[in-house]
Amino acid sequence: MADDSAPNGAPQGRKATWKQNPEAVRADILRVARAEFAEHGLSGARIQEIAARTATSKRMIFYYFGDKTRLYRAVLEDAYVEVRAAEAALDLDGLAADRALARLVGFTFDHHRDNPDFVRLVMIENIHRAAHLGASDTIRATNSPVIGQLRRICERGGQEGLFRADLDPLQLHWTISALCFYNVSNQPSFSSLFGDDLSRPEGQERLRAGVIDTVLRAVLCDPGRAAALV
Amino acid sequence: MADDSAPNGAPQGRKATWKQNPEAVRADILRVARAEFAEHGLSGARIQEIAARTATSKRMIFYYFGDKTRLYRAVLEDAYVEVRAAEAALDLDGLAADRALARLVGFTFDHHRDNPDFVRLVMIENIHRAAHLGASDTIRATNSPVIGQLRRICERGGQEGLFRADLDPLQLHWTISALCFYNVSNQPSFSSLFGDDLSRPEGQERLRAGVIDTVLRAVLCDPGRAAALV
Repeated sequence: MADDSAPNGAPQGRKATWKQNPEAVRADILRVARAEFAEHGLSGARIQEIAARTATSKRMIFYYFGDKTRLYRAVLEDAYVEVRAAEAALDLDGLAADRALARLVGFTFDHHRDNPDFVRLVMIENIHRAAHLGASDTIRATNSPVIGQLRRICERGGQEGLFRADLDPLQLHWTISALCFYNVSNQPSFSSLFGDDLSRPEGQERLRAGVIDTVLRAVLCDPGRAAALV
Repeated sequence: MADDSAPNGAPQGRKATWKQNPEAVRADILRVARAEFAEHGLSGARIQEIAARTATSKRMIFYYFGDKTRLYRAVLEDAYVEVRAAEAALDLDGLAADRALARLVGFTFDHHRDNPDFVRLVMIENIHRAAHLGASDTIRATNSPVIGQLRRICERGGQEGLFRADLDPLQLHWTISALCFYNVSNQPSFSSLFGDDLSRPEGQERLRAGVIDTVLRAVLCDPGRAAALV
């Protein structure tokens, strides 16, 4: 066994700190790899580039994740786990349905705007017809609770007499996601065609309020209530 | 001058028919090039592949368009000219504002769904931060009328007492575009995560009705009217 291998077979790079905290090393790799894959896609990303910007080595990255494709899938899974965990932590079940929905929409708008790398990863996956998302049972399992969360909000809204009775939680999630995703994914083309009024800070605030208003008016029995929730 | 050059300097390929109808040749090249660029992007597309599927030659493509980058920009321009011309032809000025808006939203939903290559071109442009869209004055000029069209609908809706008074035509276009674009751009990832209920024909019909309903409820003083317009 070579000197640079740990007893369990893990190569021990000069910069490796996994013995101290393997979870931190893994998270560090995922963080750097997310930016690299978001910028260059699966085929364009370079493991050497990722290693150079982490506290670990190329060999250690392969030890942790196997190969570039599996690292890419782990990055996708990690990105979805993060957004779904943050949604779950919003504690919406304690709010009136209309306030819960307004908070969820505002959160989604902010999350996507603040995480353009997440949006770019999903854009790149869609260019490649979601080949890797489709192959991940983990990602499907990670995402299904968001529909349950919306179903509970819809049911509560119906019982409280606030929401229309015929709402489909899946379609409502689709609507929220469409508006919040497009704000980031198509910002370059939209600004090129129509100027940057909506991408500047005050435009983004108007757009955020408009998205919450649009989603609330779509579900409220009395859409006039939406204004108070934005 | 070589035998295969026409008097004006145009190479005369074996398959060239430009003498008979240069506009038809140009349109044929643009049609095939749109599919090639939508599938492979600017760097991945091959002029040889485009030539092989047209009634013209590689040399003639360069004669018409200059180089691959200029052909790519011409494809983008052509795609936007097409959608904006189709919108202008909807003859919305003769309709009540709410019916005009419902027709425009339905048209946009159908156009994007029926032209996935247009959506893929814009996705690829956004991955590359709209470098080529931003460089085209033609595309900006092509797109500005759609905002004027919506402004007239909003003003008429306000005068007729149907629409809220504070509507922003640019933000309204953004909302329509977001919902109709995402339906195509993110169909692979959405289906991977949540199943294909919304991408099957009956799901698409429900989604189309839902998008029209959502946009109409966002602008109507009395959102209850939306149901009759879907």
